Amino acid sequence: MNESIRLHQQIEFIREIDKLKAVLRQSLLMDASRQENDAEHTWHLAVMAMIMLEYAAEPRPDLTKVIKMLLIHDIVEIDAGDTFAYDEAGHNDKFQREQLAANRIFGLLPSDQGDELMSLWLEFEAGETMESRYAATIDRLQPLLHNYYTCGASWRKHGVRSSQVLKRITQMAIPAPALHDYAVWLVGDAVAKGYLAE
Amino acid sequence: MNESIRLHQQIEFIREIDKLKAVLRQSLLMDASRQENDAEHTWHLAVMAMIMLEYAAEPRPDLTKVIKMLLIHDIVEIDAGDTFAYDEAGHNDKFQREQLAANRIFGLLPSDQGDELMSLWLEFEAGETMESRYAATIDRLQPLLHNYYTCGASWRKHGVRSSQVLKRITQMAIPAPALHDYAVWLVGDAVAKGYLAE
Repeated sequence: MNESIRLHQQIEFIREIDKLKAVLRQSLLMDASRQENDAEHTWHLAVMAMIMLEYAAEPRPDLTKVIKMLLIHDIVEIDAGDTFAYDEAGHNDKFQREQLAANRIFGLLPSDQGDELMSLWLEFEAGETMESRYAATIDRLQPLLHNYYTCGASWRKHGVRSSQVLKRITQMAIPAPALHDYAVWLVGDAVAKGYLAE
Repeated sequence: MNESIRLHQQIEFIREIDKLKAVLRQSLLMDASRQENDAEHTWHLAVMAMIMLEYAAEPRPDLTKVIKMLLIHDIVEIDAGDTFAYDEAGHNDKFQREQLAANRIFGLLPSDQGDELMSLWLEFEAGETMESRYAATIDRLQPLLHNYYTCGASWRKHGVRSSQVLKRITQMAIPAPALHDYAVWLVGDAVAKGYLAE
């Protein structure tokens, strides 16, 4: 392939993903000043994955793969939008909408790189490897912290109950038992403080 | 150390760095809708570092180290603020202000992790290794793209001239010659299009 065509495709991808900064999540920033966007959320997850690696079950996941996976896992939301964790209807066609988005956006890259990102995204979605399970654990813990430190802002807004949150974090127990225990404690404390309905 | 104290320190760090989402840069998003913040900027750099690695001079930098370095390189701006690239007065005491910030913020972590982040940050600032030089190259290219695609918004606002931009990107030439050539072409095209003063 002509080298300048390859660089042009890479720059078009870099330009396209700037739109992730405008995809809003239900979480508020920890000072409750505004909704968080997907790009800054992703940065936060990547740093957390570095800091929390010692809590991942043995054999430890490959941090480089975890971080790559996290860095690209929400890019599909540029087209598909953010589906709120407790929106059951929205989850019915979530994968289908996101698959179309992955084809379009990763398809902007030279095919070797597009294939690598598609493969990382599919691995994250399938949740079958230690890397994808640890990445998903971090992706569960971060919004829990945001809810806790904003006195349950998005839980209260959407009428979420503690049983729903506990069900959602169950999957943390195998990839990172100590982080799961901590998350369960946070949920209990949030109920005790009136941030989250019993 | 008591395990729960260690986790508490890590959570306090994760909570503190949420403030990076409120540190505004001079760059606008590529759709010119608002100023970019440091957290989303950092995410963009980390993805770019993955995608552009093939342009790094041999021997190729260690991508994991590059990404870790990028993920934490702007955290000091929570205390020290963003210093605009062409603000000469602001650069006089920049390192001193940022060193204090690094001590405070990385110091929230357990000491082994705080030391690792401090060491990555100092390596980035010193710019003597291939990893730090490649990371800095990406950190030069990204705002250039943002300026180019916003028709020179922050260049025009601050009266920046092409000679200043060319001087600033000179350091890209050794760590990533093809990206330096591309950046020089972008600057020339920006001048031709009236986005940047000659």
